[in-house]
Amino acid sequence: MKDLTERVRAFADERDWQQFHTPKNLAMALAGEVGELLAEFQWLTPEQASVVMADAEAGARVRAEIGDVMIYLTRLADVLDIDLEDAARDKLTEVATRYPVSEAKGSAAKR
Amino acid sequence: MKDLTERVRAFADERDWQQFHTPKNLAMALAGEVGELLAEFQWLTPEQASVVMADAEAGARVRAEIGDVMIYLTRLADVLDIDLEDAARDKLTEVATRYPVSEAKGSAAKR
Amino acid sequence: MKDLTERVRAFADERDWQQFHTPKNLAMALAGEVGELLAEFQWLTPEQASVVMADAEAGARVRAEIGDVMIYLTRLADVLDIDLEDAARDKLTEVATRYPVSEAKGSAAKR
Amino acid sequence: MKDLTERVRAFADERDWQQFHTPKNLAMALAGEVGELLAEFQWLTPEQASVVMADAEAGARVRAEIGDVMIYLTRLADVLDIDLEDAARDKLTEVATRYPVSEAKGSAAKR
Repeated sequence: MKDLTERVRAFADERDWQQFHTPKNLAMALAGEVGELLAEFQWLTPEQASVVMADAEAGARVRAEIGDVMIYLTRLADVLDIDLEDAARDKLTEVATRYPVSEAKGSAAKR
Repeated sequence: MKDLTERVRAFADERDWQQFHTPKNLAMALAGEVGELLAEFQWLTPEQASVVMADAEAGARVRAEIGDVMIYLTRLADVLDIDLEDAARDKLTEVATRYPVSEAKGSAAKR
Repeated sequence: MKDLTERVRAFADERDWQQFHTPKNLAMALAGEVGELLAEFQWLTPEQASVVMADAEAGARVRAEIGDVMIYLTRLADVLDIDLEDAARDKLTEVATRYPVSEAKGSAAKR
Repeated sequence: MKDLTERVRAFADERDWQQFHTPKNLAMALAGEVGELLAEFQWLTPEQASVVMADAEAGARVRAEIGDVMIYLTRLADVLDIDLEDAARDKLTEVATRYPVSEAKGSAAKR
């Protein structure tokens, strides 16, 4: 992750894009990329979506969109000085308390 | 990252949530979490957004939302058998060709 | 629509919220509300989603989220001086040319 | 609005797209279009975003994206048998109670 964070930062620095990379703008860009990812799945049945990676073309598009989402998420976290993996781990610990296995098992209730 | 991927997977497995964690559903959940992240920034001026982490309460909320986004992105990548960091690195390489430093420097044109 | 546009505008004016209602902020708020709408559907099977309005509680939540999305979309269009229905009609005409019935019939290809 | 709803419905019917237009898929498509709308604003300063309609090209793109969002929102509401304007009006009434003018005036607190 550190290497990726640094590569994304260097990419922006070299192009003088720090001026555009405010938290607000990056959050918007992240949402825009997630929108493109959604577009890959929106007309697929659940069955088709489950095997999307078996299709070379669609699979490559999905992988590229996920790459885009990860780039902006990494950049946003860097700009905010948040460790992405730590934030996820801490959140997971918190959610585990809110949804204990005994109660949450197999239930689709709000999660 | 591997450790995080495995923790998220174990979290879902223990709760029998694999049935809900289809690519389509996870892409939607990811978008939902990004929506919550946007909500943290939407009424802030760029200046306020830039110092959001200095506010203990707002900062904790932003970090938690970023954690949520990372959890679902990690889970989606895992379900699709995509290496998140590799996908980001490959995309970065591709984008670097499309926006060479010489042309992209300081320009806000579509990126 | 005119009546709704005016009611939303009056709502914002009375609260001195014009200062927050910039196009950028409103686009983010719109995306945030769409995220909440997605959250209503994300864990449902297609079958469950198709009958969501038959469930009084979930149906009311979906209707309220759609109301929220419509409020922000109406407000954003008003601030940009765009007629929402005209914009939709014009886009529909354009898309009809791009996807003529003869070619698009029953096909899930990019639309 | 009725006319628009009917035109969008006819558009889908003629192309046999009802099969793709499930609530879940339409919510995703709506989010995807909102993502494209966000992309129009993401690198603009608040000042630039405020005059975006004065630029013929960018203005046309924003109008087209708003048209797309409205098309999918109209279609989603139709499929769920929700009156879009009524849903917005009811929500506005509810929110007015939650944020009375006397308390909400000029405040950026959660809205």
